[in-house]
Amino acid sequence: MEKAHKYIAENRGRFIEELFEVLRIPSISAQSEHKPDMVRCAEYLAQIIAAAGADRADVLPTEGNPVVYAEKIVDPAARTVLVYGHYDVMPEDPRGEWRTEPFEPVIKDGRIWGRGADDDKGQLFIHIKAFEAMCATGTLPCNVKFMLEGEEEIGSPSLYDFCRKNKKMLAADIILVSDTSMLGADTPSITAGLRGLTYMEVEVVGPNKDLHSGLFGGAVANPANVLTRLVASLVDGEGRVTIPGFYDDVRELTAAERKAFNKAPFSLSDYKKALDIAAVEGEAGYTTLERTGIRPSLDVNGIWGGYIEEGTKTVIPSRASAKISMRLVPDQDWKKIGKLFEKHFRSIAPKSVKVNVKCLHGGAPYVSPTDTAAYRAAEHAVSDVFGKKPLPFYSGGSIPIISGFESILGIKSILLGFGLAKDAIHSPNESFGLDMFDKGLAAIPLFYKYFAQ
Amino acid sequence: MEKAHKYIAENRGRFIEELFEVLRIPSISAQSEHKPDMVRCAEYLAQIIAAAGADRADVLPTEGNPVVYAEKIVDPAARTVLVYGHYDVMPEDPRGEWRTEPFEPVIKDGRIWGRGADDDKGQLFIHIKAFEAMCATGTLPCNVKFMLEGEEEIGSPSLYDFCRKNKKMLAADIILVSDTSMLGADTPSITAGLRGLTYMEVEVVGPNKDLHSGLFGGAVANPANVLTRLVASLVDGEGRVTIPGFYDDVRELTAAERKAFNKAPFSLSDYKKALDIAAVEGEAGYTTLERTGIRPSLDVNGIWGGYIEEGTKTVIPSRASAKISMRLVPDQDWKKIGKLFEKHFRSIAPKSVKVNVKCLHGGAPYVSPTDTAAYRAAEHAVSDVFGKKPLPFYSGGSIPIISGFESILGIKSILLGFGLAKDAIHSPNESFGLDMFDKGLAAIPLFYKYFAQ
Repeated sequence: MEKAHKYIAENRGRFIEELFEVLRIPSISAQSEHKPDMVRCAEYLAQIIAAAGADRADVLPTEGNPVVYAEKIVDPAARTVLVYGHYDVMPEDPRGEWRTEPFEPVIKDGRIWGRGADDDKGQLFIHIKAFEAMCATGTLPCNVKFMLEGEEEIGSPSLYDFCRKNKKMLAADIILVSDTSMLGADTPSITAGLRGLTYMEVEVVGPNKDLHSGLFGGAVANPANVLTRLVASLVDGEGRVTIPGFYDDVRELTAAERKAFNKAPFSLSDYKKALDIAAVEGEAGYTTLERTGIRPSLDVNGIWGGYIEEGTKTVIPSRASAKISMRLVPDQDWKKIGKLFEKHFRSIAPKSVKVNVKCLHGGAPYVSPTDTAAYRAAEHAVSDVFGKKPLPFYSGGSIPIISGFESILGIKSILLGFGLAKDAIHSPNESFGLDMFDKGLAAIPLFYKYFAQ
Repeated sequence: MEKAHKYIAENRGRFIEELFEVLRIPSISAQSEHKPDMVRCAEYLAQIIAAAGADRADVLPTEGNPVVYAEKIVDPAARTVLVYGHYDVMPEDPRGEWRTEPFEPVIKDGRIWGRGADDDKGQLFIHIKAFEAMCATGTLPCNVKFMLEGEEEIGSPSLYDFCRKNKKMLAADIILVSDTSMLGADTPSITAGLRGLTYMEVEVVGPNKDLHSGLFGGAVANPANVLTRLVASLVDGEGRVTIPGFYDDVRELTAAERKAFNKAPFSLSDYKKALDIAAVEGEAGYTTLERTGIRPSLDVNGIWGGYIEEGTKTVIPSRASAKISMRLVPDQDWKKIGKLFEKHFRSIAPKSVKVNVKCLHGGAPYVSPTDTAAYRAAEHAVSDVFGKKPLPFYSGGSIPIISGFESILGIKSILLGFGLAKDAIHSPNESFGLDMFDKGLAAIPLFYKYFAQ
């Protein structure tokens, strides 16, 4: 792969320029006003994959945002790698906290700053450019397929159906995904587990209009007060979710498994310092690593009701809402959890209000086996580039579609991500280290080499 | 007063036109962008009071929005009435729920629709026009002073100082205020009590940036979750506020007083039907009338944090906030309650977050005696116009400055309001019945007549 590495070194400036073109497109899947940006982003990606050497590179329609599908078949007898990534990004909100423009990328302090710099435009770009380098130098040892979607951040609603309808086209030996993080630049890791997700929205409805809080205060149930009561009750004093049945399907690790799990390098004082918090908080009886790696959780992602502008308004709001998501672990079923949540939330609402509950999206947890040829190839590639054997790691995050790939296509995924915690994905001032970008570009061709053997 | 009544009948069309001019000015005191509208509104009011026959009518500056001060001295030996009202209005939010433009008044179904139609532009207009009618017909039997402020909806921060500095100018035998409601068009009432108010804003601050709820969920205190927990805990299962010392100064009524208080006509089923709620909710052991009339309360007026736009964002917000106000009854001290709130809120916050607490404004509760010449004059005037003796009524609302008038100026207030519950003050689709407007115009000259005797 030396030829490919040389090609990469010679063309790196152009790679960054092309990546910046992609980062400038505000492809926010959660906001319908950005529909045209989704198409524009997909078309640009198809164009550069075609230019990189693909036999075909198409923008395929779905019920939602289009999928970029591309492939290059070097030898029908060779192994086939299906690269998955997503070109949609999170909203930039809260806009005021960005130090640079979210959709005008800049390089500073050896990092690319901008929404999507890591998640996932920066990471998927590594695959496109590693592919280009192998094509250009005649060193591509596997067949390659690309499937880049535009709805990962909203739960991949169209991709399940896309997979069902295109099983043959998508046939592969492994799915390769760079949409996760490593433990550290000095502590390389491969993600061996992902949590699942159930994302709900609840609304508490009280009186038929906003009321004067003096004339009615104390006599009418205030939907905002009731909402705080209901939401607060979803987690008990021990940090456990109170929804009946919530833990029924949680796979409990053995003492030996937990011991092994906690061997990952972790400093609680560094963790608290990085977040500027005086104390962590979570389920009693578990470590911080366990709380995000092997235990489910429940978080309010948004809450709103009443007067939230400058100054004061003495009002009892007619309604108040919250977005609440739960991270799930094997073997929790995200649809079942959504139903349990809804049933419980309705059951605890007092007679004085009405509640509306809906499930916005979700996905199953995923566990990646570490005893496969693909995992070993990834391990080998990372060892070569980072100089250390990577640790298998259970991430607290979710990529719901990954378990969908397994159930629909029957293909396992390798989660070989090059992000780091400091990349601040989903937050203001997202960034991606050029060092990790370069290491990714170096590692991917090696993965192909080892996987082909 | 027949002459004055005749004048009113002949000029009513013009009165409405002039009122509409006032209603068109978006004089929202809570929002600083409306500063120029405050001045415009004050100047217009001064102009029409001058035209109505005042000796002087000035727009006087304060630290905040200006005060309209006007007077007509008919006889230094005659009784003097100081009319108080406010020309500022509540924000129109939530805008989407208005069926007409909030600042483009229209008449429909015998009602004036628009922000301020009742509170308080419509009601203060009654006084300006009754004054005009008495001046024009030579029937004004008292000296009259007007003090119209532009900060009532934000707690009258500048009026206290204005009163301190202008005691002599404001000297009067009684303050007459129309900024309250009657029990019903068929159940006239005079407000004999107002609750006080302490308005707080709290902020819960967690990690130094918004976090990915997958990577951190379950291991880091989520400020939105913590906020719901803290706010929910402020009221217990019996509807009682849990802040230590909160009830210490609450004046408990005797069994006889409570019995008398509950004699006011009230239908719980009509009340629930009007609000479209299945059940009321409040402090255990008290009736709905008592809960708003003689008991304190705590309401969330606004709550916000995290992602509140369309769709989903898997984020742990860095901070979450709430606006919380408490209605107070005699003899609670609003500043003391603010301090108790702050101390308690800080004490219940877990180590995993920081909290910010501030008091935005407040005011003392007020009780109006019913055995004075002014109360009897009001009672007589209302009896003449409504054909029924008005009931003294304890409103749940607050006009914090009223108790300020008593302590600073040493003058009692008569709360002779012509609003009705259906006017939806502070809510979308505020309106004011033309029948009540007309009855107000008829009653005010009679008040002057009886009060002068």
